Amino acid sequence: MENRKIRVGITHGDINGVGYEVILKTFSDPTMLELCTPVVYGSPKVAAYHRKTMEIQTSFSIVNSAEEVQDGRVNVVNCIEEELKVELTKPTPEAGKAALAALERALADYREGLFDVLVTAPINKHTIQSDAFHFPGHTEYIEERVGEGQKALMILLKGDFRVALVTGHVPVRDIAGELTKELIMEKMEIFHRSLKKDFGIDNPRIAVFSLNPHAGDNGLLGTEEQEVIIPAMKEMIARGVQCFGPYPADGFMGSGNYTHFDGILAMYHDQGLAPFKALVMDEGVNFTAGLPIVRTSPAHGTAYDIAGKGIASEDSFRQAVYVAMDVFRNRAWEKEISARPLRKQYYEKRDDSDKLKLDSIEEE
Amino acid sequence: MENRKIRVGITHGDINGVGYEVILKTFSDPTMLELCTPVVYGSPKVAAYHRKTMEIQTSFSIVNSAEEVQDGRVNVVNCIEEELKVELTKPTPEAGKAALAALERALADYREGLFDVLVTAPINKHTIQSDAFHFPGHTEYIEERVGEGQKALMILLKGDFRVALVTGHVPVRDIAGELTKELIMEKMEIFHRSLKKDFGIDNPRIAVFSLNPHAGDNGLLGTEEQEVIIPAMKEMIARGVQCFGPYPADGFMGSGNYTHFDGILAMYHDQGLAPFKALVMDEGVNFTAGLPIVRTSPAHGTAYDIAGKGIASEDSFRQAVYVAMDVFRNRAWEKEISARPLRKQYYEKRDDSDKLKLDSIEEE
Repeated sequence: MENRKIRVGITHGDINGVGYEVILKTFSDPTMLELCTPVVYGSPKVAAYHRKTMEIQTSFSIVNSAEEVQDGRVNVVNCIEEELKVELTKPTPEAGKAALAALERALADYREGLFDVLVTAPINKHTIQSDAFHFPGHTEYIEERVGEGQKALMILLKGDFRVALVTGHVPVRDIAGELTKELIMEKMEIFHRSLKKDFGIDNPRIAVFSLNPHAGDNGLLGTEEQEVIIPAMKEMIARGVQCFGPYPADGFMGSGNYTHFDGILAMYHDQGLAPFKALVMDEGVNFTAGLPIVRTSPAHGTAYDIAGKGIASEDSFRQAVYVAMDVFRNRAWEKEISARPLRKQYYEKRDDSDKLKLDSIEEE
Repeated sequence: MENRKIRVGITHGDINGVGYEVILKTFSDPTMLELCTPVVYGSPKVAAYHRKTMEIQTSFSIVNSAEEVQDGRVNVVNCIEEELKVELTKPTPEAGKAALAALERALADYREGLFDVLVTAPINKHTIQSDAFHFPGHTEYIEERVGEGQKALMILLKGDFRVALVTGHVPVRDIAGELTKELIMEKMEIFHRSLKKDFGIDNPRIAVFSLNPHAGDNGLLGTEEQEVIIPAMKEMIARGVQCFGPYPADGFMGSGNYTHFDGILAMYHDQGLAPFKALVMDEGVNFTAGLPIVRTSPAHGTAYDIAGKGIASEDSFRQAVYVAMDVFRNRAWEKEISARPLRKQYYEKRDDSDKLKLDSIEEE
């Protein structure tokens, strides 16, 4: 691992929401610059406008490109040539264009290796739509642009409380139809790998939610538990993944059982996110697992209703920066410790044909 | 309102679970007997067994019938003639039979006016099934036996945080199909009436959840919001019900918005109960609204896993007793203040044909 500070690429998101507020507030604490070097993709003018409007005491340096970035400063890369009109609390096409411009510049720089991890401030999923952006959100866009063919999995987390979803932006009418054994296994596989490599958990324990109330109550309230979820779990257990359940979501959350697991795999959007946000919205972080890029974002949205008032909490954004750095370090660490593995010992070998020869050196 | 203490009928539920433990612990506090007089429908022998096993210091008096009940005591009515075998932590047919016997005796006594409100300890929904009991749970059974043709609505509450469901024990596959405008209106109507009469809220504010993620995102993620939920809300608003939404469950819970409403109407089981239980399981109370009988229960189940260990919390059960008494008093109060209404004043009359005549007395 290099010794220079981790470079955190930050996209400004929607300029009419709370994005700049939470970015600037996060870096108003000078100790943050001892931990990392932020590279904000956005507009220095808009940043200055927000800073002045809410009287936030964070100074920043304008740089022409990420190559000029300096440690110890909040660096802002100007991604927008035209004049930008900030209309606090309003969704505007101009803000959508500016959000996309920052995102595209950031991903181009990421490909050049100009920063290490990406933290995205919230966008408006409607105004950002264009020829270049026709995705339900950040996650899908990033998956396509810099995913290198890997599948993304959204994990919401606070500390050791991590929730991932099997189905995401799906109407309730279609959930049961979309839920297949293969899909559950695919998501659990990414989740499991991420818990190991990104969070450094050696043998992660995953709790699986049931689809139906009372886990289907032995088939009285739905058959997907027996037909889809349990078979998927059995196959994953056979592959060495520690998964448990399926648990009814309400009782599981009520009993505080979630503290005993490293991750929770929910079957659909509201089932996982409603209890998660009820408990830890303020410090929740969205992490995009499964991709080569390390990307996080705060759990909240543009929050137009409080934009420009100076009352937005930066906790979630700051946690997003912390999580991105932690994952980056865990991955580097994982790579280092697995670079020169010990040779397998005798008892690990599958049969006797392969004898332990401690006196010879195996070639890698 | 009479001045005698409120009589609280209590059914013992499953004798192998935590029922007796939470009942006895609740009344180990002598001040409880100043607030109400409990009539426990169950088995004195089983009660004594639990008391001894867990060394709970609650004494009780055995009575042959509820007519002999005395204030200042925990009265236990013996509902089971045979010898009963307690097998802590285990679901047994014997326990199911005993749970049903207590329930039937209690409802018979309720019809005779021998107690005022009913609090039920948790049953096992499988072992209790028989020729006389073929219901998904307490609520449906009570609705049929003493509902007098009214429809029940389950409300989960803690303090001012109240959640009701439009669809209950329904597989996720069938939720969207079951959700009709009429059903939403029916449930909202009961909810609204209960908030007024049972909880004494003059003009209750009800938050309505969306069915689909992001409230369907303008039809991209489902059409039920536009086609079913919003039309139902509009019609209820026209009838004078203050309802708001539809709100996406996750963002609503995350923003703490629930503190601004008197009730939340969720569309299905996990959507309402997972966040509710995540937040307030320990003191959650289940109230059966819509029926002439006042019936509550703790939000937890038989909790076999900790039965007999003496570690179950009685908070939820105690709250269930409090809520039942509060609702009973609110109803009596409501009845009293609406018994002799003031005549309508001039400005309330619909047209001029009906003049204000303060000098005459109208007959009621």
